[in-house]
Amino acid sequence: MSIRVTVWHEYRHEKTNPVVAKLYPQGIHEAIAGHLRKNKVFNVSTATLDEPQAGLTDEKLANTDVLTWWGHTAHGDVPDAVVDRVCERVTQHGMGLLVLHSGHFSKVFKKLMGTSCDLKWREDPTEREILWVTRPGHPIVQGIDDHFILDHEEMYGEFFDIPEPETVYLISSFSGGEVFRSGCTWTRGAGKIVYFRPGHETFPTYYDANVLKVIENAVKWAAPTGENVLKFGNRKRGWVEKT
Amino acid sequence: MSIRVTVWHEYRHEKTNPVVAKLYPQGIHEAIAGHLRKNKVFNVSTATLDEPQAGLTDEKLANTDVLTWWGHTAHGDVPDAVVDRVCERVTQHGMGLLVLHSGHFSKVFKKLMGTSCDLKWREDPTEREILWVTRPGHPIVQGIDDHFILDHEEMYGEFFDIPEPETVYLISSFSGGEVFRSGCTWTRGAGKIVYFRPGHETFPTYYDANVLKVIENAVKWAAPTGENVLKFGNRKRGWVEKT
Amino acid sequence: MSIRVTVWHEYRHEKTNPVVAKLYPQGIHEAIAGHLRKNKVFNVSTATLDEPQAGLTDEKLANTDVLTWWGHTAHGDVPDAVVDRVCERVTQHGMGLLVLHSGHFSKVFKKLMGTSCDLKWREDPTEREILWVTRPGHPIVQGIDDHFILDHEEMYGEFFDIPEPETVYLISSFSGGEVFRSGCTWTRGAGKIVYFRPGHETFPTYYDANVLKVIENAVKWAAPTGENVLKFGNRKRGWVEKT
Amino acid sequence: MSIRVTVWHEYRHEKTNPVVAKLYPQGIHEAIAGHLRKNKVFNVSTATLDEPQAGLTDEKLANTDVLTWWGHTAHGDVPDAVVDRVCERVTQHGMGLLVLHSGHFSKVFKKLMGTSCDLKWREDPTEREILWVTRPGHPIVQGIDDHFILDHEEMYGEFFDIPEPETVYLISSFSGGEVFRSGCTWTRGAGKIVYFRPGHETFPTYYDANVLKVIENAVKWAAPTGENVLKFGNRKRGWVEKT
Repeated sequence: MSIRVTVWHEYRHEKTNPVVAKLYPQGIHEAIAGHLRKNKVFNVSTATLDEPQAGLTDEKLANTDVLTWWGHTAHGDVPDAVVDRVCERVTQHGMGLLVLHSGHFSKVFKKLMGTSCDLKWREDPTEREILWVTRPGHPIVQGIDDHFILDHEEMYGEFFDIPEPETVYLISSFSGGEVFRSGCTWTRGAGKIVYFRPGHETFPTYYDANVLKVIENAVKWAAPTGENVLKFGNRKRGWVEKT
Repeated sequence: MSIRVTVWHEYRHEKTNPVVAKLYPQGIHEAIAGHLRKNKVFNVSTATLDEPQAGLTDEKLANTDVLTWWGHTAHGDVPDAVVDRVCERVTQHGMGLLVLHSGHFSKVFKKLMGTSCDLKWREDPTEREILWVTRPGHPIVQGIDDHFILDHEEMYGEFFDIPEPETVYLISSFSGGEVFRSGCTWTRGAGKIVYFRPGHETFPTYYDANVLKVIENAVKWAAPTGENVLKFGNRKRGWVEKT
Repeated sequence: MSIRVTVWHEYRHEKTNPVVAKLYPQGIHEAIAGHLRKNKVFNVSTATLDEPQAGLTDEKLANTDVLTWWGHTAHGDVPDAVVDRVCERVTQHGMGLLVLHSGHFSKVFKKLMGTSCDLKWREDPTEREILWVTRPGHPIVQGIDDHFILDHEEMYGEFFDIPEPETVYLISSFSGGEVFRSGCTWTRGAGKIVYFRPGHETFPTYYDANVLKVIENAVKWAAPTGENVLKFGNRKRGWVEKT
Repeated sequence: MSIRVTVWHEYRHEKTNPVVAKLYPQGIHEAIAGHLRKNKVFNVSTATLDEPQAGLTDEKLANTDVLTWWGHTAHGDVPDAVVDRVCERVTQHGMGLLVLHSGHFSKVFKKLMGTSCDLKWREDPTEREILWVTRPGHPIVQGIDDHFILDHEEMYGEFFDIPEPETVYLISSFSGGEVFRSGCTWTRGAGKIVYFRPGHETFPTYYDANVLKVIENAVKWAAPTGENVLKFGNRKRGWVEKT
């Protein structure tokens, strides 16, 4: 079974920051999409903020099994209609959603979580992140050792204002002493949502083998497995036996 | 320690439907508030939709430990600014929130849940609800037997589109064969949220001793226990030891 | 990828109760195994209580991806060494476990849950069970409508003394008015555990298309997806970078 | 309302290790009990392993609202009958249980969790632990800032083989780079269970103001709030209305 992935990217930093442009000459979305394309199970496309309707038309979403989301500097530019459409697609149609790094502050993620999604943060070139597997056996950490290290990353620290996750599959420590729930999952309606922390735009995080493996696993795990039956509304007495 | 409860009520049905007016001559809010006032631990006030700012000014909310919410016919009339204020008070300041019956479709509840909060329903005068305790020992069901019965209630049926609750303390069956997770709790930020299903406006539900007991317990349980420390934002390396 | 399923069955009722013998002439295990064998993804075998070591040797378990468990009248006859071996296989090696019906009182399930696993029950030939999907979109209910009906089943009623499930995918109502969390999942160590309620030995439950579909889905969902990395014990300072 | 706390302690290290004897001349249990006695809400007693029945007779447990547990070197010496009695008291009667530090490997905790409860560890005199609040607003962290530091502690590292907690209220980082879910809660039957990590016997951890505050809060939170109604067993059709 093929999984139709749409890699959504804000795609602004690459156009203004030479450091980012050099690291990701085709954009972060192409680094992610390029990796996924190596696996035939994925049918990969991309969408970016500056396309019409942020690249996420009704038709596009209707043909997406899993959407990945990276945004940072322009969360406010995503039209509310697109946000509503994405959230409705997740909860009512079971589209999977993988939220990456600074996507924690996207309108989409905040709407689905119902909390501020705020956190502590620090950009420091000497910061090192160690990510620890806290749910071995979970499909999302398949092929990952008990921990892995990113030599340079932005720090995100607790308290991370999210609803208690259904699963915490990774917890990070940073050189500065902070900790963070870096890998979390939730269900919302018929849809599965994954958060995965790493991916600051000024570091080569999306070329790291462990990071790419988690992304690949997460997309597989979040994909819907078939039709979703959601029935709501008024029912007359006796309907239960008649269907 | 005193708990400051604000009983919020839409208060529209009582003004237009003689059945409701007869059952609740002072409004549903006064039936609930009247019960709570018997217990000295509660400092009770009410607020209704047709007051300025829906009765929920900044000052009012700043002096509320737990807010109870009943709405049905006029969810859309609650100003978005009030909704944002209530949700912010829950997640960032730890105000407790008890959502009653048709409040499942309120803007406040939907915003905090992030899902459609939709369900099946039926108004049938012969419908009987049996509520089963599924978390004995939980403070919210203290003083409740292993089940209790409401001879006449509206039916709500699964699937109820809510995030997986942290605790399901009551599950109902209805004469028509449906089931419903009638008592649920969640944490959002520093705040505790409780949903409690019964309470259709055309039935004397808010005079039932078991219903009133659950409401009383839920308000106590959802009350904040002290100051909430939420710290977010940028941190320089080394700050950890200096605070 | 093939999934190696071992269908374990107590296999005692069939030998002493003519009603059960007539319904399941080759035993309940063969009704379940026979269905699974139709799907090539499953590599199916069976094991029963009266085989040496209850049919669950170290070698057998080492070659089992998912174990299904039906027991009722002879829970006490399962050797403790077998119980320990099964639980260790689940938590430390990620073997999936599907516990059926009266298996709720098996030593294996009670050890993994840590609670009494007690409940209310009634055998009544007129009892009808309606099972409602409470987690649409979950792989275990793929292909199931929003509810299904079993015309004759034993009643199980709440309170069911289990740890709060990670997912409740089905809730039942019974003609007598009781409710029950009939479909639940938990993670224990690297292993996934599923409980699925129906299956009283005197009813043809294991020939019902919906019941068989849920069993098939649950076995797929509980199967491990690869190697599980669990590392414990003493670590010297500095080991983190050296692995 | 008074809370009857029994502080249980293995009390062996103090008798053989001069470092521990000097730090805790009356034993770790007296350091904890001494702090709790300052608050009139607690009715405090102690019990130790070398008393008859490990100090935990039926009568003692029947008069205990919350039991705290510290053990390390002699888990195997706790009689199985005492373990069964404690677990039964938690699940069937709602006694609260606070498990401290190396109590993670006690028979009582392992039986209630159903997993190995294993972890990584290191004794290193230079190890520093930083504990981060991950559930602000929870009663157990009332009065605690967003983090606190213990200058010298034993390291415990993930993966900690426990069932997904209902709440994770503290996560630690250690100087060596490891992380640990240091504060967790679960419900088992009618009882509340809390795990709190710090407390190695060779460090003055049980004199730390933050540690003592968490212990005090946890005991209050885990205390039962009234009678627990657990009803199981056979029920005739029609019983639902007759009780």
